[in-house]
Amino acid sequence: MGKVHLLTGTKETTTEYNLVRVNSAWTRKEKHSHTASTESVSPAMIYESLTDTGTCWTVVTPIIFSYKVIETHALLDPCNSTLLTGHTQGPQQADNMRIPKKPMKRFVVVDQEVYQIYGPEINKYFEANNVNFKILALPTTEENKSMEMALKILEELNSFSIDRRTEPVIAIGGGVCLDIVGLAASLYRRRTPYIRVPTTLLSYIDASVGAKTGVNFANCKNKLGAYIPPVATYLDLSFIKSVPRRHISNGMAEMLKMALMKHKELFELLEKHGQHLLESKFQSDSEVFGPCSQSVFRSTRLAIVTMLEELAPNLWEDDLNRLVDFGHLISPALEMRLLPALLHGEVVNIEMAYMVYVSWESGLVTEEEKNRIIGCMVGLELPVWHQACTMDMIQSSLQERLKHSGGLIRMPLPVGLGKAEIFNNTSTDVLISAHEKWSNELSTHAV
Amino acid sequence: MGKVHLLTGTKETTTEYNLVRVNSAWTRKEKHSHTASTESVSPAMIYESLTDTGTCWTVVTPIIFSYKVIETHALLDPCNSTLLTGHTQGPQQADNMRIPKKPMKRFVVVDQEVYQIYGPEINKYFEANNVNFKILALPTTEENKSMEMALKILEELNSFSIDRRTEPVIAIGGGVCLDIVGLAASLYRRRTPYIRVPTTLLSYIDASVGAKTGVNFANCKNKLGAYIPPVATYLDLSFIKSVPRRHISNGMAEMLKMALMKHKELFELLEKHGQHLLESKFQSDSEVFGPCSQSVFRSTRLAIVTMLEELAPNLWEDDLNRLVDFGHLISPALEMRLLPALLHGEVVNIEMAYMVYVSWESGLVTEEEKNRIIGCMVGLELPVWHQACTMDMIQSSLQERLKHSGGLIRMPLPVGLGKAEIFNNTSTDVLISAHEKWSNELSTHAV
Ligand SMILES: NC(=O)c1ccc[n+]([C@@H]2O[C@H](COP(=O)([O-])OP(=O)(O)OC[C@H]3O[C@@H](n4cnc5c(N)ncnc54)[C@H](O)[C@@H]3O)[C@@H](O)[C@H]2O)c1
Ligand SMILES: NC(=O)c1ccc[n+]([C@@H]2O[C@H](COP(=O)([O-])OP(=O)(O)OC[C@H]3O[C@@H](n4cnc5c(N)ncnc54)[C@H](O)[C@@H]3O)[C@@H](O)[C@H]2O)c1
Ligand SMILES: [Zn+2]
Ligand SMILES: [Zn+2]
Repeated sequence: MGKVHLLTGTKETTTEYNLVRVNSAWTRKEKHSHTASTESVSPAMIYESLTDTGTCWTVVTPIIFSYKVIETHALLDPCNSTLLTGHTQGPQQADNMRIPKKPMKRFVVVDQEVYQIYGPEINKYFEANNVNFKILALPTTEENKSMEMALKILEELNSFSIDRRTEPVIAIGGGVCLDIVGLAASLYRRRTPYIRVPTTLLSYIDASVGAKTGVNFANCKNKLGAYIPPVATYLDLSFIKSVPRRHISNGMAEMLKMALMKHKELFELLEKHGQHLLESKFQSDSEVFGPCSQSVFRSTRLAIVTMLEELAPNLWEDDLNRLVDFGHLISPALEMRLLPALLHGEVVNIEMAYMVYVSWESGLVTEEEKNRIIGCMVGLELPVWHQACTMDMIQSSLQERLKHSGGLIRMPLPVGLGKAEIFNNTSTDVLISAHEKWSNELSTHAV
Repeated sequence: MGKVHLLTGTKETTTEYNLVRVNSAWTRKEKHSHTASTESVSPAMIYESLTDTGTCWTVVTPIIFSYKVIETHALLDPCNSTLLTGHTQGPQQADNMRIPKKPMKRFVVVDQEVYQIYGPEINKYFEANNVNFKILALPTTEENKSMEMALKILEELNSFSIDRRTEPVIAIGGGVCLDIVGLAASLYRRRTPYIRVPTTLLSYIDASVGAKTGVNFANCKNKLGAYIPPVATYLDLSFIKSVPRRHISNGMAEMLKMALMKHKELFELLEKHGQHLLESKFQSDSEVFGPCSQSVFRSTRLAIVTMLEELAPNLWEDDLNRLVDFGHLISPALEMRLLPALLHGEVVNIEMAYMVYVSWESGLVTEEEKNRIIGCMVGLELPVWHQACTMDMIQSSLQERLKHSGGLIRMPLPVGLGKAEIFNNTSTDVLISAHEKWSNELSTHAV
């Protein structure tokens, strides 16, 4: 019982062990052997086999990640307890937090520009709630997105001193701030919980949802990082009101990505209400509850849900077939050329526009569908073509991707509106003629 | 169907969703709803509930860690393929590696002192196997165990450039080297596989088995790090032959810890063969296959298995009741005072000796058992008392621990030989009188 053959390179016999806790000690027990009802069994397994040179143990053990993404409004209203206790699991735990023996302690990192606008409100919030807090307002720009800044945060965090289990670090800002703080917290004592409060549209619908943290290194974007989700993300659209219009378009590019990959309704919302969303900066006017102001909630919610669906089953990106990679195959190389003149979402959109032509050229979308997609992009005030996106760059990017994705190209392409498939055999001819048509039709839209 | 009440702080209804892959897209599907046999279902779940202010999503998703711990010998013999392909999963994958289209590439970090002894062998190994390799020999000492050194490694790694999926980083050295390289690899592209080759006894039986990586920060040991296991650890006792005798005692302290906590046979091996193990430096003489030389394999294997049993179900240390904490409650404070004059295992042993008196004073071990344990420690040439371990330090350490372990002290104590329990209510009186007896009986053993 419990003896099986595993593919371990040689033909030896492998014994499978469960781990059972008897009193204080964990003990191996052959799989399928009797377990007393007082014993707790771990989901971890140990496989043991004998080789010519000794024993080989294989440990297989799951770590469960659990995190919350919570829509709220008036997050900084002192009566809204979300920022302090929204991450706690049950009513009991939240109560414990509300009637604490000692005052709560919170370490808060805020993007400097965000602090200039919302600083007074943030201070008032923690003061009114009697929190022992420290706010670090930092210039968390793309150029400063480095391990040096993460270490600076860590020094301050360490001297402020928090309880690593009950006092999560809070990050308030755009994607850069959330990514750096997330990495710093994940490194501190090998993992300190942190909370994300996105203040740009891009971070609201993208960085807020997954597990990725990171900093730039050796001239490469996000070369160092970790896959550790926050304990909670708090979504409050009211921060978006102060985001520059161009940065709102930027975020909408990633919304459009999800729409094109898997949600026709979201596409049609962006197509129909894009201009309204841009103009209103995602602020719903409570006086005029027309279909337009509902589009604010509906479109952001759909973007979040479709993104959660893709990320939750693939939190550590082990599966290489990823729809969320749409627009992200050539963009890394393109960004090397075009940042900071262009923004991430803008570069992504240029690639998506080209890929729509690849779909069209492959007969996966009709001309009308192609035109509707490009029209929607233009309506969102996103660039749809750039001379830097040459055939050379496209081919070398795809070549580079082949190396890092197990020998397959795994190219997501729209097949109709709001539906996509992943393709591995798109021919060079198709790529070239799509590039020609794309350039012929859209080069007049050059930025 | 699929509607349940979750403890989320309010009484709202929660909908549970599975994630199902249809063609390329992951889609939510209410739990228990029908799933076509062509669809793949993820173990991830999304819970959705409505609050007063919007939607709350809770994502729960497991990440499976899998790693190998492999005993081998002659690891650096060019004919032994373990170092190059031991981490691969099945025979097919190993074959793919052996008949590669392009030469294999390996980035190797070696402790400088280890490199002085084994450098020629290491170079010969990779040369003979036609590997495109780069060796970085670094002074990986406790004083250099910092993020700066991790970043230095990362710069070299980045410019050497490896395939992040198939070309694991290799670390060869003591615990310091393995911990720094493990952290660097875990940060690189958010996770690059790495391999551990422990060359000290301490790292052979301790750092080799679990998932912890780390560096010191702001004067605190291992303050920054990650819980990412290596893809494989290769155990070759022959490295131990050059380890100084005192460092072998140092490693045996952690073996003794496991023996006292959960394995009487291991205790008796250390009690009976301790001196032989020290003298032979864990090298088995193939001429004299007596019970002594078998104790080399048996004792190291038992130390590894008992450690694996405790770590596998608790890889991320979420469970605070840990037998492996024995000897590690007061030692952090003690190390601040005594390092580098004493070694980690020595400090741990001083604490373990005191704790044995606490057990005796509590009636958990007999006087004879206490004497056997102390006698064994002395035989392993480990210190059993130190004046720096005062009652004040003990009490402030336990106070500090209370803060970080959910309000319970969780003190592992031996109950007989090779068995232990975790206690929360040891009285101050017992701690004090144990301290008196410990000092009376053992202060003559002061180091
Ligand atoms: N972790 C992830 O999954 C993930 C996903 C997508 C993007 N990202 C990262 O996010 C970054 C891009 O995010 P971003 O677009 O938010 O950039 P950003 O953080 O640089 O913010 C853009 C600008 O807006 C300012 N700003 C932020 N909030 C504001 C507000 N409410 N009002 C006025 N100004 C405000 C910032 O100071 C900054 O100047 C990139 O570094 C990218 O790598 C991460
Ligand atoms: N990750 C974990 O789970 C874990 C567990 C236990 C300890 N550790 C860490 O390990 C470190 C202690 O490990 P260590 O005791 O191996 O220390 P170490 O790495 O400093 O090695 C001790 C000394 O032995 C030398 N050395 C190494 N191998 C040798 C060999 N074969 N021959 C001759 N000399 C050799 C080293 O150069 C060093 O001077 C600590 O930093 C501790 O935090 C980590
Ligand atoms: Zn993106
Ligand atoms: Zn230890």
